[in-house]
Amino acid sequence: MCAPKVIRSTAERLGRRDFLTLAMGGAATLGVLAAPGVAGGAQAGRRETRRRGRQMMNLSHVLTPQFPIWPGLPPIQVTNIKSQDKDGFYANTWTIVEHNGTHVDAPLHFAKGKWSADEIPDAALVAPVAVIHVHDRAKANPDTAVTVDDLKAWEQKYGRIPAGAAVFMHSGWEARASDQTAFRNADGENVMHFPGFSKGAAEFLVKERSIVGIGTDTLSLDLGNSKDFATHVIVLGANKWGIENLANLARIPESGATVFVGMPKVKGASGGPAQALAVW
Amino acid sequence: MCAPKVIRSTAERLGRRDFLTLAMGGAATLGVLAAPGVAGGAQAGRRETRRRGRQMMNLSHVLTPQFPIWPGLPPIQVTNIKSQDKDGFYANTWTIVEHNGTHVDAPLHFAKGKWSADEIPDAALVAPVAVIHVHDRAKANPDTAVTVDDLKAWEQKYGRIPAGAAVFMHSGWEARASDQTAFRNADGENVMHFPGFSKGAAEFLVKERSIVGIGTDTLSLDLGNSKDFATHVIVLGANKWGIENLANLARIPESGATVFVGMPKVKGASGGPAQALAVW
Repeated sequence: MCAPKVIRSTAERLGRRDFLTLAMGGAATLGVLAAPGVAGGAQAGRRETRRRGRQMMNLSHVLTPQFPIWPGLPPIQVTNIKSQDKDGFYANTWTIVEHNGTHVDAPLHFAKGKWSADEIPDAALVAPVAVIHVHDRAKANPDTAVTVDDLKAWEQKYGRIPAGAAVFMHSGWEARASDQTAFRNADGENVMHFPGFSKGAAEFLVKERSIVGIGTDTLSLDLGNSKDFATHVIVLGANKWGIENLANLARIPESGATVFVGMPKVKGASGGPAQALAVW
Repeated sequence: MCAPKVIRSTAERLGRRDFLTLAMGGAATLGVLAAPGVAGGAQAGRRETRRRGRQMMNLSHVLTPQFPIWPGLPPIQVTNIKSQDKDGFYANTWTIVEHNGTHVDAPLHFAKGKWSADEIPDAALVAPVAVIHVHDRAKANPDTAVTVDDLKAWEQKYGRIPAGAAVFMHSGWEARASDQTAFRNADGENVMHFPGFSKGAAEFLVKERSIVGIGTDTLSLDLGNSKDFATHVIVLGANKWGIENLANLARIPESGATVFVGMPKVKGASGGPAQALAVW
């Protein structure tokens, strides 16, 4: 067995690219960049990541005034204020609700006294990701939910959900993102139908595991037809963040990626549009 | 010498925390998470980082309507639109110029046809950081600049500026951030005085090195007294990004940190308020 100092020395002699691939493969899966005390993935996940080496994927949609938004909220308005020809430089003003595009829900969005966007600790913005796929079920049933069984099935494959993890639902909903009507998927009584986290899954994640946040590729953390926003209340109430309207969740590993969540640090904000980058 | 497979095997046997410390120390300094083909820091930097293990630092100021802004531009306006007592949840609308707070300048801000904020490639948003300290000179002379000599002095200590790097100026200006008058530091003729990158340093970085962007802890990439915005023109014109009003640059290593730059992905934006996180 090599001692750490032997590995250090060896790393200095190895070609840089070889070491990068090795370090990153191990690092991402073992939870480097994640919260301290993170638990690693299972053997299968670790091997898969190592074969891949370093990759990145942007989990944010490009935000335009046409991007779907929660009913009743206005879309982003972009107003040009400076132009290159007239002013020598180009700039715009945005008028934007904190919950537009791929965006963070700070705990304060639903829970008085909990963190606003600027108060979320740095360590909670860099997290190992567990992706829960429900896209097969969502094709037949838009009211399908992430359940405790789904979370346990993930753990059967990859090991316990790491401490400090972000758990993201992939429902395939982004295929509808260019069409607000299809994305909201409301019925004749204006009840929306899209997947989300069940109340039970939300409770399991905040009580039985030690996550930093959850995310979805839909307009909400809850099911579209939720009347009580139970998942929002449970997750944000436990001082965990949410992120909605994620993209590209089918293009990152189910286990082994690390996500960086970057939203503006506006004082007292209930959330904000975010750049979410996955690295593995 | 150990072969990669021996290190892999060893890593599996080592305690997780030991391996995390080792992997992250090596990873950050060697440029993991940075653009492909990155060059590592010098020996001294590598050892320093390894001793430290994993650390993070937020490089963004909290954005309020009082935060200093470029003369003539309006501060952020935060308007409450939903309250917990009345609506069951809390949310605001922002009216915000793209260049407020700690924010990205996309190449398009000064260079027609170059990248808007949403077009900046993912790989350019995760970069090894070189910090250039000019705070000692800035105390006596607010018109001091980052020069080519400063960049070469950094390289003497840490090795060549890595390909894919972000080069950040630390002038100590953030100590003035609570006072817009002191931050702008304008004279009787309304000419501002604060440090920035010299034209020569900008040319060196885009022609002789292969950076992704530059950043400052002041209101501009250029000196406050610049009349031609030469550094903006050169750096953004070369399709590199800028980031202004950075914080905490004295609290990250001069070499060995990796920065993640997260601004909203608004279509056609000339920039945007950003969460910048350094990890090492």
